[in-house]
Amino acid sequence: MTRYKAIIAYDGTHFNGFQKQPNGRTVQEEMEKTLKKMANGKEITVFGSGRTDAGVHAMGQVIHFDYPEERPLERMRFALDTQSSEDIAVKAVEIVSDDFHARYLVKEKTYQFRVDIGKPRSPFRRHYASYFPYPLDLSKIQRALPDLIGTHDFTSFCASGSSIEDKVRTIYEAKMEVNEAGDELLFTFRGNGFLYKMIRILVGTLLKIGNGRLSEDSIPEIIAKKDRNAAGPTAHPEGLYLYEVVYD
Amino acid sequence: MTRYKAIIAYDGTHFNGFQKQPNGRTVQEEMEKTLKKMANGKEITVFGSGRTDAGVHAMGQVIHFDYPEERPLERMRFALDTQSSEDIAVKAVEIVSDDFHARYLVKEKTYQFRVDIGKPRSPFRRHYASYFPYPLDLSKIQRALPDLIGTHDFTSFCASGSSIEDKVRTIYEAKMEVNEAGDELLFTFRGNGFLYKMIRILVGTLLKIGNGRLSEDSIPEIIAKKDRNAAGPTAHPEGLYLYEVVYD
Repeated sequence: MTRYKAIIAYDGTHFNGFQKQPNGRTVQEEMEKTLKKMANGKEITVFGSGRTDAGVHAMGQVIHFDYPEERPLERMRFALDTQSSEDIAVKAVEIVSDDFHARYLVKEKTYQFRVDIGKPRSPFRRHYASYFPYPLDLSKIQRALPDLIGTHDFTSFCASGSSIEDKVRTIYEAKMEVNEAGDELLFTFRGNGFLYKMIRILVGTLLKIGNGRLSEDSIPEIIAKKDRNAAGPTAHPEGLYLYEVVYD
Repeated sequence: MTRYKAIIAYDGTHFNGFQKQPNGRTVQEEMEKTLKKMANGKEITVFGSGRTDAGVHAMGQVIHFDYPEERPLERMRFALDTQSSEDIAVKAVEIVSDDFHARYLVKEKTYQFRVDIGKPRSPFRRHYASYFPYPLDLSKIQRALPDLIGTHDFTSFCASGSSIEDKVRTIYEAKMEVNEAGDELLFTFRGNGFLYKMIRILVGTLLKIGNGRLSEDSIPEIIAKKDRNAAGPTAHPEGLYLYEVVYD
């Protein structure tokens, strides 16, 4: 038995999220099916670094699994990549020690969020960016972003219904770039972990600030309130990408 | 009756091409349905600058149509854009004289063609770029491109079965760029007109040159032969974009 770690990318459009569940197609189930074929019918469990919701994409999701025999790395990567569906790509595979765990040993995660601000909405980005057709003062968003950096209780930015007790997380990086054509925003958030729907609520809040319906100085107050109602709306899932997961 | 010209973009993935036909969804039919709704059930014919095949995209297809009454431009654009399906975007609308014709008065067309050369194939580009996983010497392609520029009989680059007699066309610009990540090629071809499947055969031939299976000096010979069999294969439609149409 050999433990493998793999970096995978997926287009989340036609998945009902990462995690296996009774209804709908999931990334975990798809990878487990591929591994079962490769291992002559043996059931193999796939562990991810965390869930992604329906419609959310990944450029660098990390999984691990135990395979009955050791196979050359490129052959393993190629088989996993070509035998799984075309909306999943297997970018890299490595052999790890038996105590590696894709979920429990995460040190840092980076998410990106794309917002189409063009007029009209691009038909090519309709599944790959959230659309925001309202006026935006980007300098207000740039002013607000640094207030997110640091260690805070992010209760205000966590979807209600989450069962997690400790809502303190550290954000190391929070930035926004505009593409050359000026019709797309790219947000990047890097931190030691993120709460349920946290990135989408952060983006929804920042867009509300850019639109002038919340003050550019309001982030510290929103954090202090520890109340989901103080933050902005939850941005749509199609703009969200799990970009990278870093381990110790 | 007012004649309108519109610039539209579409994701060709779920269209059976531009031109109306008995089977499958087409861009022309979709636009005519939208206009009929807007004009209280009156049938309005849409004329395009030319066909695009199934799976082929457009950033700047041009259409014209006659509308029973004059409407403010932005209201017309917004109605057309929002009432047509989400894989079509209406970028610009203007009123033109009654002798404007989207097809017969074309002066120049620009096409782009994207090739995913990454390993593995990106799940995000599977409908938006053709995939080429074989070795490529890009300098050979750069060497061959200028040989396409000028006025030539492009019979060798025309799909067999085309009923067009005159196969002389002028190419003004033929270039290839590599994206920053080094995993995608972007070809651009600008000319006074292109034959059936011509861009896809040009790209298929250039990739064969880059792969070393055709000489980097072979373009003049291929043109001289006036034989489709002398050129390379037809590249897949999902990489092709009608980028711009220019009128006098």
